[in-house]
Amino acid sequence: MDQNPQEKAKIRAKQVDVKTVYEGKWIKMNLVDFQNEKGHICKAWEMVERQGVRPDQECNGVDVCPIIKYKDGRRKLLLIANYRPPVNAYTVEFPAGLLDDGDLLENARRELKEETGYTADEIKVLDYCPLLRTDPWKSNETTKVVIAYIDGDKECNINPKQDLETEENIDIFTVDLNEKFMENLRKIVEENNYQMTLQMYSLCLGFSLLGLSQ
Amino acid sequence: MDQNPQEKAKIRAKQVDVKTVYEGKWIKMNLVDFQNEKGHICKAWEMVERQGVRPDQECNGVDVCPIIKYKDGRRKLLLIANYRPPVNAYTVEFPAGLLDDGDLLENARRELKEETGYTADEIKVLDYCPLLRTDPWKSNETTKVVIAYIDGDKECNINPKQDLETEENIDIFTVDLNEKFMENLRKIVEENNYQMTLQMYSLCLGFSLLGLSQ
Repeated sequence: MDQNPQEKAKIRAKQVDVKTVYEGKWIKMNLVDFQNEKGHICKAWEMVERQGVRPDQECNGVDVCPIIKYKDGRRKLLLIANYRPPVNAYTVEFPAGLLDDGDLLENARRELKEETGYTADEIKVLDYCPLLRTDPWKSNETTKVVIAYIDGDKECNINPKQDLETEENIDIFTVDLNEKFMENLRKIVEENNYQMTLQMYSLCLGFSLLGLSQ
Repeated sequence: MDQNPQEKAKIRAKQVDVKTVYEGKWIKMNLVDFQNEKGHICKAWEMVERQGVRPDQECNGVDVCPIIKYKDGRRKLLLIANYRPPVNAYTVEFPAGLLDDGDLLENARRELKEETGYTADEIKVLDYCPLLRTDPWKSNETTKVVIAYIDGDKECNINPKQDLETEENIDIFTVDLNEKFMENLRKIVEENNYQMTLQMYSLCLGFSLLGLSQ
């Protein structure tokens, strides 16, 4: 017997209404009504909206994955610990920022320079980096990750000097890029009383996953 | 000449006041005043507060990294694409959930079973997994990641059956665990019109980072 065509074509969940209930300067609180896969309406999912991305912007922000290369073959990942008012602690992150005017790579280069003092030699989006959702269960915020290659032997990168805005409070540090990446990072985090982010822990997990799956 | 003692001891940024300006059922909007490293007060940083973690809870939620092992040596990562009302799309994630009663591992085992149908053989927190911040630039939300090992040849895991709540809409899929992890995942994401998360992209980056740094 033929299957009912309506059963064949699975209904996909979708938004049916969005109401703003609080509007701040940077973020809004919205309530979303959506239709689930069975066709029922689910009411008032609480979400956070980042103020709109302008038409000339690809996403809300940009994250920079900075790799320092030295002539002698050493490779280091350059990270920051950023004071974050919502958690009242310094958290481990990539250099990053909200997008201003200009394109993604320009913004990435400038954020890297301001937050760490380092100047990138080459900066690029990998072959694969779609729009990334930071926390889609509660917000519509988006970012992209770019890779920055830094020549660690260059004069301008010997004594890098940060250029922070008043509200920014940022430590910088490097982590050796080798098989002990998670262990290397753990040591720095514990010694400095930093807090870990899901993003950086996911990077560590990626590093370790082939080993873990043995 | 001696350095000024006040210059020696670097002031660390810290919260000085938090006001709630909107209270929803699950999340609140707060304004945080903090003192920066130069001693200045910065006003009204907008943040999102998850309703309080109870004293018997370690964190707000739990993320499960599920590795399926087969007798013939194949290894797969089990992922989900979850309909997320804030972005009106299905996003690629680990099985995960907010913590109910009970401990972290119990919650993880139950979420895995409900969202994917799979039963874990072994479930554990790695030697290193501190409290993780999901998006500390705008919220105080916390999670931990646990690793779940699944025996893919077991009867109960041959035709796994989800047990979803009304508001949940979840596809499940597996990704081969090998050097082509990012490529494998990309194919699935593009074919199904899923959206990527920063978390999953970070996992891919971790996989690729040693190669990228050559």
